[in-house]
Amino acid sequence: MNDNGAAAERLFGGIEAGGTKFVCVVGTGPDDIRAKTRIDTTRPEPTLDHTIRFFREFESSGAEIAAIGIASFGPVELRERESDYGYITRTPKPHWSHTDMVGPIAAALDVPIGFDTDVNAAALAEGRWGASRGLDTHVYVTVGTGIGGGVVANGGAVHGLVHPEIGHVYVPRVEGDTYGGGCPYHDDCLEGMASGFAMNERWERRAEELEGDAFDAALAMEATYLASGFRNIVYAIAPERIVVGGGVSEMPGLIPLVRSKLVERLGGYPGLPEHAGDDFVVPAQLGSGAGSAGSLVLAELALQRRFATG
Amino acid sequence: MNDNGAAAERLFGGIEAGGTKFVCVVGTGPDDIRAKTRIDTTRPEPTLDHTIRFFREFESSGAEIAAIGIASFGPVELRERESDYGYITRTPKPHWSHTDMVGPIAAALDVPIGFDTDVNAAALAEGRWGASRGLDTHVYVTVGTGIGGGVVANGGAVHGLVHPEIGHVYVPRVEGDTYGGGCPYHDDCLEGMASGFAMNERWERRAEELEGDAFDAALAMEATYLASGFRNIVYAIAPERIVVGGGVSEMPGLIPLVRSKLVERLGGYPGLPEHAGDDFVVPAQLGSGAGSAGSLVLAELALQRRFATG
Repeated sequence: MNDNGAAAERLFGGIEAGGTKFVCVVGTGPDDIRAKTRIDTTRPEPTLDHTIRFFREFESSGAEIAAIGIASFGPVELRERESDYGYITRTPKPHWSHTDMVGPIAAALDVPIGFDTDVNAAALAEGRWGASRGLDTHVYVTVGTGIGGGVVANGGAVHGLVHPEIGHVYVPRVEGDTYGGGCPYHDDCLEGMASGFAMNERWERRAEELEGDAFDAALAMEATYLASGFRNIVYAIAPERIVVGGGVSEMPGLIPLVRSKLVERLGGYPGLPEHAGDDFVVPAQLGSGAGSAGSLVLAELALQRRFATG
Repeated sequence: MNDNGAAAERLFGGIEAGGTKFVCVVGTGPDDIRAKTRIDTTRPEPTLDHTIRFFREFESSGAEIAAIGIASFGPVELRERESDYGYITRTPKPHWSHTDMVGPIAAALDVPIGFDTDVNAAALAEGRWGASRGLDTHVYVTVGTGIGGGVVANGGAVHGLVHPEIGHVYVPRVEGDTYGGGCPYHDDCLEGMASGFAMNERWERRAEELEGDAFDAALAMEATYLASGFRNIVYAIAPERIVVGGGVSEMPGLIPLVRSKLVERLGGYPGLPEHAGDDFVVPAQLGSGAGSAGSLVLAELALQRRFATG
């Protein structure tokens, strides 16, 4: 994925398909967006129709889009051998379970289509233009209403049976925390204990509204849970960096506290000084643009695959 | 990594570098080993000298070795940009901390050298010839005296700052288990609670010697800890399969019990029927030959990289 001249001349389309809006862009990267629109996420058909219209209108000006990437909310089916490849599989969002995302876009626009989760796309984008630029093996974790994560290794996003669901790794309960947990599936997972949703329920107000001792207590607990979750990531994946985005990650002082608590939790194993460095757990750089930028990386990877397989 | 004719004609050398022995082979795969020797692991210099002599003697017959793979005990340095790339970094094994493994072999034999952990190599071998054949994203976990694991995704073994250390993911303590844990770094990790070492300490005899109710209790606890650890693997990596090897994994009934307890621990999320299937957690197929076979895959990958980069 070098930013060489030939690649820079190609225009890619990107769709960040979220539960409340679809952000559609055409460009070569986050600093070179030639067109952009925001479409409310209503029902699948009108939303996808509107999306297709945006790209068609762009192409009607004579410019050509080489490939399109879709960075989607999920869960999604990423295994190409499956008959529902490219679908949102089952989601609490009304009307969107079992929605074919890739099919209609591919049929209408006849270009290679890349498809992955929004967080895998964000991880790719942070690797290409953001906080994990130049690294081979890295993880992006978003801590917002929920907690999700994307993993990049060996030149691509990692997904097997399904995509990583980093929010659901185990975390030990913090002593004295009596909150029951906010995950309907687990009483002991990172998302259940440390998402924005969980913080709101535990502290009975939004994280941004906490002050004084209440803020300090919430910050310490949040950092402890995140550090426990990141320990599992360190040992399972051995990333070179963990990039943290999402609204909750902006709590003042959170990232430095996660760093020191992670070092405690690693307990000196494997004893790498890098795990204690300021550049191991870092804030995301692309902010809310990560999903969009990531959709452009998905497009480029789809084009490369097309070339590679003839 | 197709088994095409051209590749099959090339001979690779492999070194499974373990703490008690080095197993050196020449061949194309586990079913086509042309030469093999076992060298006691003494001090580094004589052990590596002996290893080099084995390959030189093989080549003196006129046959050519195209590349050599080293599947090493660790921890090892896998980042090529580091000055100690190819070293065993620090190990409790006397004399072997900070030992250059790749350098002497490369200098003596002048072929591309692949280098990775023994467990990453075993994961690659199970993917090439064993229990995860044909899969893209899979994990190999060995449960023996210790617990280690290798991860394969996007065509290669995963390693970033360091290699995965799957034995050290967090697992919640099983109710009623008063054993303090066998890991010097953590009081709550998979290896500390579920390794063969931990079982011996907890039950005050070897797993193979447990009978009747004591066996059933040990089996249930072992399966519970493994399932908890595997839950973290499922959510962090989303593998298509988890392959389990090592002596402890051969306890009768263990793998089916791990399967059912893993399903409990996933709690219905993400709700994939595949996670409940008999082909998700499976026994290793290559047995004690996985490391050797993996060293041959490392050799082949090293040769491919040499071609790719000119």
